[in-house]
Amino acid sequence: MIYLNGAIVPHDFARIDPADRGFTLADGLFETLRAYRGKPFRLADHLERLSDSADALGIPLLFDVPAIAEAVIAVLEANRLADAAIRITLTRGTGPRGLAPPADVKPTLLIAATPYTPLPDICAAVTVGIRRNEGSPLSRMKSLAYLDNVLAAGEAAQRHAEEAILLNNAGRVCGAARANLFAVIAGRLVTPPVSDGVLAGIARRVVLELAAVLKIPAEEASLSPADLAGAQEIFLTNSLFEIRSVARLDDRAFGPGAVAAKLRADYRGLV
Amino acid sequence: MIYLNGAIVPHDFARIDPADRGFTLADGLFETLRAYRGKPFRLADHLERLSDSADALGIPLLFDVPAIAEAVIAVLEANRLADAAIRITLTRGTGPRGLAPPADVKPTLLIAATPYTPLPDICAAVTVGIRRNEGSPLSRMKSLAYLDNVLAAGEAAQRHAEEAILLNNAGRVCGAARANLFAVIAGRLVTPPVSDGVLAGIARRVVLELAAVLKIPAEEASLSPADLAGAQEIFLTNSLFEIRSVARLDDRAFGPGAVAAKLRADYRGLV
Repeated sequence: MIYLNGAIVPHDFARIDPADRGFTLADGLFETLRAYRGKPFRLADHLERLSDSADALGIPLLFDVPAIAEAVIAVLEANRLADAAIRITLTRGTGPRGLAPPADVKPTLLIAATPYTPLPDICAAVTVGIRRNEGSPLSRMKSLAYLDNVLAAGEAAQRHAEEAILLNNAGRVCGAARANLFAVIAGRLVTPPVSDGVLAGIARRVVLELAAVLKIPAEEASLSPADLAGAQEIFLTNSLFEIRSVARLDDRAFGPGAVAAKLRADYRGLV
Repeated sequence: MIYLNGAIVPHDFARIDPADRGFTLADGLFETLRAYRGKPFRLADHLERLSDSADALGIPLLFDVPAIAEAVIAVLEANRLADAAIRITLTRGTGPRGLAPPADVKPTLLIAATPYTPLPDICAAVTVGIRRNEGSPLSRMKSLAYLDNVLAAGEAAQRHAEEAILLNNAGRVCGAARANLFAVIAGRLVTPPVSDGVLAGIARRVVLELAAVLKIPAEEASLSPADLAGAQEIFLTNSLFEIRSVARLDDRAFGPGAVAAKLRADYRGLV
């Protein structure tokens, strides 16, 4: 069962119009988050980001944030899911041929929930050739224009790694195809600033909050590939797999990450 | 009436699955072209590009190129259109949550045709802030990840211009949100190379072919914004509006373009 524009319907009855600009032009946004024991984690933060990005793109949200939050719960209940991955998709709705949106935009809002199988706490990663576009505001949003990430993840899989690390066009580290990146360097936690072409991830924010509580020195600063190669620990964060340590990046192996382990335990204490 | 996966159906009966990766991840490609008096112009070139890009992305085309060409004609006939804009959309089909494609990909193929109203031969253009991502192979394909172009076109419209000129992250000129770009500089025709983050447009190719026939010296070479400001003529090309002269770029006005006028007349002789 999925939610589509105000109604919860069986997936097979839900129709996206072939003229939906989400389909024709990637003109939309999405959010992914987890529900734990029936409770979506940091839902308000996700909806705030969705609302802010929609404002920036000029997509009217129509449904107010509390109504979307209710719909998320309704989708979980309709699917009898207590623990789940939730995806919220918002598009600029249908439009005529061409790039210009219609005068009267009727956005499409879709909410789906699926069972989520936790991933191992460690992964292997490779640096891929495709670059993130720091010269586009979309590099800082979770837009539907996600094909670069698909290609990056595909290259990583071909090279027998679970995650793809992307640099931007200036050669700075951005993060992973599916996640934000943190490095522990000289005892400090460092994550690239959004200005380098990085999504302001919700799990990233939670980790920065936890670091403050735990008095782990943390900062947003640009990272080079050499910085990563010399790091004590590298870990990735997203709202689905939470915190995942990088056990191998390209040719370099990393030991068990004590900082990640501590943050992971505390993250799981929050959910 | 539109074509969807082997059948021609009324638009309102055509359903894109909410799990289609074209919708969820912009995981697909498209082509736009014109039909003149019932004949799609350079259809073989468009289908070759679609096929090559699909190969590069690992999307199986399933339908062979002659079958797609037949379907294009059938869509024109079903809509009783002799002169039209045609859009062919190919996606990687449905998939489960996440970036990894399913083992068994069933692509989605959609063909739509709409009446096309020719645009004036001149336009105003502005250079926009958003950059093209020369570090992604998608900058050289017509992928569904088109939201950067939507934003660029929107910025141009807000600034009372019809077209948006985009630079790449290295500051080189790429082209327009909807078109390739040519400049006439010291009597030579110059268009940026695809390696700068440029789509290998079909109208661009036609113009290069016509230039060779007309013995107008032409080359693919990187352009700076200063090169554009100093050009004798600038014009834009795409398969819908053909050749459109830029009468104003930012603060600079350009006179009537003799080279563009000659190429435009010959282009129209081909269709």
